[in-house]
Amino acid sequence: MNFTFWAPLAGVVALFFAFYLANRINSVSAGNKTMEEIAHAIHEGAMAFLFREYKTLVVFVAALAAVIFVAGIMTHGAESLQPETAVAFVIGAICSVLAGYIGMNVATKANVRTANAAQESANKALGIAFSGGAVMGMSVVGLGLVGLGIVTFLFDNPNVVNGFALGASSIALFGRVGGGIYTKAADVGADLVGKVEAGIPEDDPRNPAVIADNVGDNVGDVAGMGADLFESYVGSIIAGMALAVSLGLGRNGIILPLLIAAAGILASIIGTFFVKTDEGANAAKALSMGTLVASILSVIATYFLTTNLLPATGKVTGMGVFIATVAGLIAGVSIGKITEYYTSGDFNPVKEIAKASQTGTATNIIAGIAIGMVSTAAPVIVTVIAILIAFKFAGLYGIALAAVGMLSTTGMVVAVDAYGPIADNAGGIAEMSHLDPKVRKITDALDAVGNTTAAIGKGFAIGSAALTALALFSAYTTAAGITNIDLLNPAVVAGLFIGGMLPYLFSAMTMQAVGRAAFDMIEEVRRQFKTIPGLMEGKAKPDYANCVRISTGAALREMILPGLLAVIAPIFVGLMPGLGKEALGGLLAGALVSGFLLAIMMANAGGAWDNAKKYIEAGNYGGKGSQAHAAAVSGDTVGDPFKDTSGPSINILIKLMTIVSLVFAPLFM
Amino acid sequence: MNFTFWAPLAGVVALFFAFYLANRINSVSAGNKTMEEIAHAIHEGAMAFLFREYKTLVVFVAALAAVIFVAGIMTHGAESLQPETAVAFVIGAICSVLAGYIGMNVATKANVRTANAAQESANKALGIAFSGGAVMGMSVVGLGLVGLGIVTFLFDNPNVVNGFALGASSIALFGRVGGGIYTKAADVGADLVGKVEAGIPEDDPRNPAVIADNVGDNVGDVAGMGADLFESYVGSIIAGMALAVSLGLGRNGIILPLLIAAAGILASIIGTFFVKTDEGANAAKALSMGTLVASILSVIATYFLTTNLLPATGKVTGMGVFIATVAGLIAGVSIGKITEYYTSGDFNPVKEIAKASQTGTATNIIAGIAIGMVSTAAPVIVTVIAILIAFKFAGLYGIALAAVGMLSTTGMVVAVDAYGPIADNAGGIAEMSHLDPKVRKITDALDAVGNTTAAIGKGFAIGSAALTALALFSAYTTAAGITNIDLLNPAVVAGLFIGGMLPYLFSAMTMQAVGRAAFDMIEEVRRQFKTIPGLMEGKAKPDYANCVRISTGAALREMILPGLLAVIAPIFVGLMPGLGKEALGGLLAGALVSGFLLAIMMANAGGAWDNAKKYIEAGNYGGKGSQAHAAAVSGDTVGDPFKDTSGPSINILIKLMTIVSLVFAPLFM
Repeated sequence: MNFTFWAPLAGVVALFFAFYLANRINSVSAGNKTMEEIAHAIHEGAMAFLFREYKTLVVFVAALAAVIFVAGIMTHGAESLQPETAVAFVIGAICSVLAGYIGMNVATKANVRTANAAQESANKALGIAFSGGAVMGMSVVGLGLVGLGIVTFLFDNPNVVNGFALGASSIALFGRVGGGIYTKAADVGADLVGKVEAGIPEDDPRNPAVIADNVGDNVGDVAGMGADLFESYVGSIIAGMALAVSLGLGRNGIILPLLIAAAGILASIIGTFFVKTDEGANAAKALSMGTLVASILSVIATYFLTTNLLPATGKVTGMGVFIATVAGLIAGVSIGKITEYYTSGDFNPVKEIAKASQTGTATNIIAGIAIGMVSTAAPVIVTVIAILIAFKFAGLYGIALAAVGMLSTTGMVVAVDAYGPIADNAGGIAEMSHLDPKVRKITDALDAVGNTTAAIGKGFAIGSAALTALALFSAYTTAAGITNIDLLNPAVVAGLFIGGMLPYLFSAMTMQAVGRAAFDMIEEVRRQFKTIPGLMEGKAKPDYANCVRISTGAALREMILPGLLAVIAPIFVGLMPGLGKEALGGLLAGALVSGFLLAIMMANAGGAWDNAKKYIEAGNYGGKGSQAHAAAVSGDTVGDPFKDTSGPSINILIKLMTIVSLVFAPLFM
Repeated sequence: MNFTFWAPLAGVVALFFAFYLANRINSVSAGNKTMEEIAHAIHEGAMAFLFREYKTLVVFVAALAAVIFVAGIMTHGAESLQPETAVAFVIGAICSVLAGYIGMNVATKANVRTANAAQESANKALGIAFSGGAVMGMSVVGLGLVGLGIVTFLFDNPNVVNGFALGASSIALFGRVGGGIYTKAADVGADLVGKVEAGIPEDDPRNPAVIADNVGDNVGDVAGMGADLFESYVGSIIAGMALAVSLGLGRNGIILPLLIAAAGILASIIGTFFVKTDEGANAAKALSMGTLVASILSVIATYFLTTNLLPATGKVTGMGVFIATVAGLIAGVSIGKITEYYTSGDFNPVKEIAKASQTGTATNIIAGIAIGMVSTAAPVIVTVIAILIAFKFAGLYGIALAAVGMLSTTGMVVAVDAYGPIADNAGGIAEMSHLDPKVRKITDALDAVGNTTAAIGKGFAIGSAALTALALFSAYTTAAGITNIDLLNPAVVAGLFIGGMLPYLFSAMTMQAVGRAAFDMIEEVRRQFKTIPGLMEGKAKPDYANCVRISTGAALREMILPGLLAVIAPIFVGLMPGLGKEALGGLLAGALVSGFLLAIMMANAGGAWDNAKKYIEAGNYGGKGSQAHAAAVSGDTVGDPFKDTSGPSINILIKLMTIVSLVFAPLFM
């Protein structure tokens, strides 16, 4: 029996399941004409952004493919960069694009149907929103395994297969960075002029930036997050396969990561049926029950796979790999829970920030940054323990399998995560189409759960990015023939410093990009309020499309420079005389550590500020309109690019630089 | 001829020069009775803080000395920890305490005399303020070399001499952390209640926290900065000596760092005479002329020392070491200049922050953090180049000598730096004693120059801390018998992650400490305004002493936990089974990289916010009272703990952890 076909087969099953869910969503009514119109505008805006983004990316992908192809021909040799890698690269990019396209397409149809269903019952709304998210989740894992299956079948050479991860990673970079800039430019523009200056409520249809804002939720949190986890998912599997080859673990060792992923897909599909949407269901409980079932099934399947495929004795045993895999899975869940503690209004950290808001914005900001910094400690400890356990029980292969274990339930994680922006959008549509206030109440309740799952998802994305990058780092070192990256070697220290600095530079670039884009958006919204007669009175319609155009243009323009930095920096250091492949190893390690910390700090500070504001809005410390509330709103605005642009973009940076190093490793030999 | 005596002799010369300057300052009139009273209150407050701080430290020093002593006896052996190290440790602590005491004592006398001299002329005032700073500078380098001379003479064993650096480092930690908490608690309390709530001007005598605020300038910027550079100074010399021993460079290689330092002292003394204070002098030019002369003389002397003491051929040559030393010196000056670019109102970065203030606090904060992050790139590149050059031309010894080169003119650097708070204090005293407004104008001009020199000094302190820590790291690895710290070893990666996280945890702790202390101070100032009748009308005196007591108590209480963290973390990792000495090496490297970046980011963002506020106050974007100004004031308040507490404290953290590892290295073998 050839096991190799099981993985793409599971991928196909996932895609069929996604197709089934999408059809079910489409069969439901989208509500009245106003709702349809608004939903159409959001859908059009989101799709227009994706098309323009992908058009820009075609140039990038073609150029990089050409570089790989030429470099592959020039350096020909069995152990070197292969021209075929360019093909794998393009396939990887296409799969990631497809996953994003399908997910966004369905999410922007599920949003209005969620709003409409909320007119009937909360549980129907939950069901549709979650189904929409599940389409994204299943597309990510399905296309991941199908694509990997095709590439492995076509080439069967790890050097070439790595190209698939590079393709996924390139799209992820632009998806996260571009999406992050898009969503925050629109959000800040809509908030600062609409809510603060014009004094109209959130999601008011008179606000010219309101459609762009809703598009942004999809672009950033659905497509961006999906591309991020697609990259981690594919990267961890490839790292496991590559290490199995270089460590000589045989055919079973090579296909094990694929099979664990395949089992995870089935576990996730079964898990979705445990997201109860009957009458009287609790959204938060329903979602965590689904995740729990998927995780348990995945662990059981992994046990049978590892102990049956790998030997019971020797250096790498089935039991050892099982322990490593579970260590990864537990670490992922723990980091999610830690994130929840630091960013949910139910616990002390957020309450402290709310308390500090009483003495003004400055103390709110200081408290938030301090919480963000403190929140790095526990995830680091958890990650370190997982790494040490994985290595102790299964060596370098164990580290890669810990990442695979963490990511085995990606289908479910993305589903729960993408549910959030759909519920959020549904609320916006309900508001804009003047539905009964009780509808908005239902969508608000669903959205509140979505905020928590989003925070957990962010923690999970960072943790998985770190573990995946570490696994890819190990794969890079073996691919580059490195036996030793010695911190006593000044070139390595130099690489460490440069690598540590890159996430700072990258974050600064993305934050400044948001600043510039938001500035343009603010000007445009102000202009429309001034020049369109009858807008404030609701008699005239704003020019939504122009705001969408500004966000789109800014995102595409601003994502180029950080993107190039991530691709060029590792190649430059690897080829630079006096630095070279060991220094590049230092760079990757430095970027990994510094980026991991910065990403956690920014994501958690941002999440905590957001919920501190909501905590005050719930009536604490004077509630809405108080001085504390004003301070908390400022803190939340600072946190927006932290948690939705710069923080998540760092995930991609550390993975992409490692994959670039892995693919180009033969050039540094 | 025995060269060993030249270094302590130069130290004695420095102390005599300090004594001469102190006498000259004392011989000048302190002005009228009000001025004397105010100055007395500041002096008393500062000295009271120092005494209480040192009293707390006696317990810490005694305990750590006992640990070293007992560990030394238990592990006896020629290569192991020696009980005598405890003695060297105590001597190091005493020397640092003495330098802080002398410097603060004179600085708090020079401040009022500067104010009084400003009634006559700006140049007289400049002369006195600079002389006051020079006493601190000369005390630091003088006691550094005298102390090192005594310890080397008594023990002549590098394992023991390391204890001296540990003593210096322990005091520095508490000086920086305690001082940083003190100064910002007082500052925030004085500003938020006095300026914002009560609406009285800065340095108004009716403000109960005004004396504590002025004390804080001395405690933080004079004693804290002095202790920081004392540690770097001593640490770099000791690292050079230790590496000379382990690399077998002979007697000349061992004493070379001491002799370069000695030459640097003489160069600095000559440099002070080039700080022109004749009629028509320009303060900024005068100070940089002094620094320039000291640097040039130091380079010339280093050339003669290296080429005469070291061989012309072989692995480590005189010329090679000369190049390494100069590379360090140039790196130090460059980092200072880069810092000036990012934090001075004359350049674009600060103007961008000012511009962003127009749209509110949130955009001001985002712009400031982005600038802080961007500003890490250039210093990293400069440091990396210096490291690579130093290593290429003189190996590991070269890296230590680059640090020695950077720090050779420490006497001058501290003098210029400590000048700032003296001028700042003089302005406060002029205000409080109602001197003619033209006096305040003169002191304001001197203070403005002081702000620039303070920013440059902070950059220099961070750069020298990084290079010193790197040199001490090399010394640690040789002392622990480590031949290889391999990033492919998961224990090293674990250490790297933990080390990278510690500066975040440490910064969070110090920021939260400032928050708590400021909260107490705000309550107290509010209480006094409420309960003391006639205070606002200027008919009653506030209870200054109580505010001083609150700052002092908070600083002492809050410095304990971060202090213990810095000492215990490396020992814990070094002794922990599964981690050990290589993991500790990873921890030190992780802390160095992550701490260096975080310290630059925080210091530069803080400096830039401060000057963005001043830029707006100078009349841009609406000037004082505008919305942009309000946003900039909030940004400045966020920046205060960044630049004066957490940022500078990280310098100490990375050095102290390395020195602790170096001293306890024999235990990890």
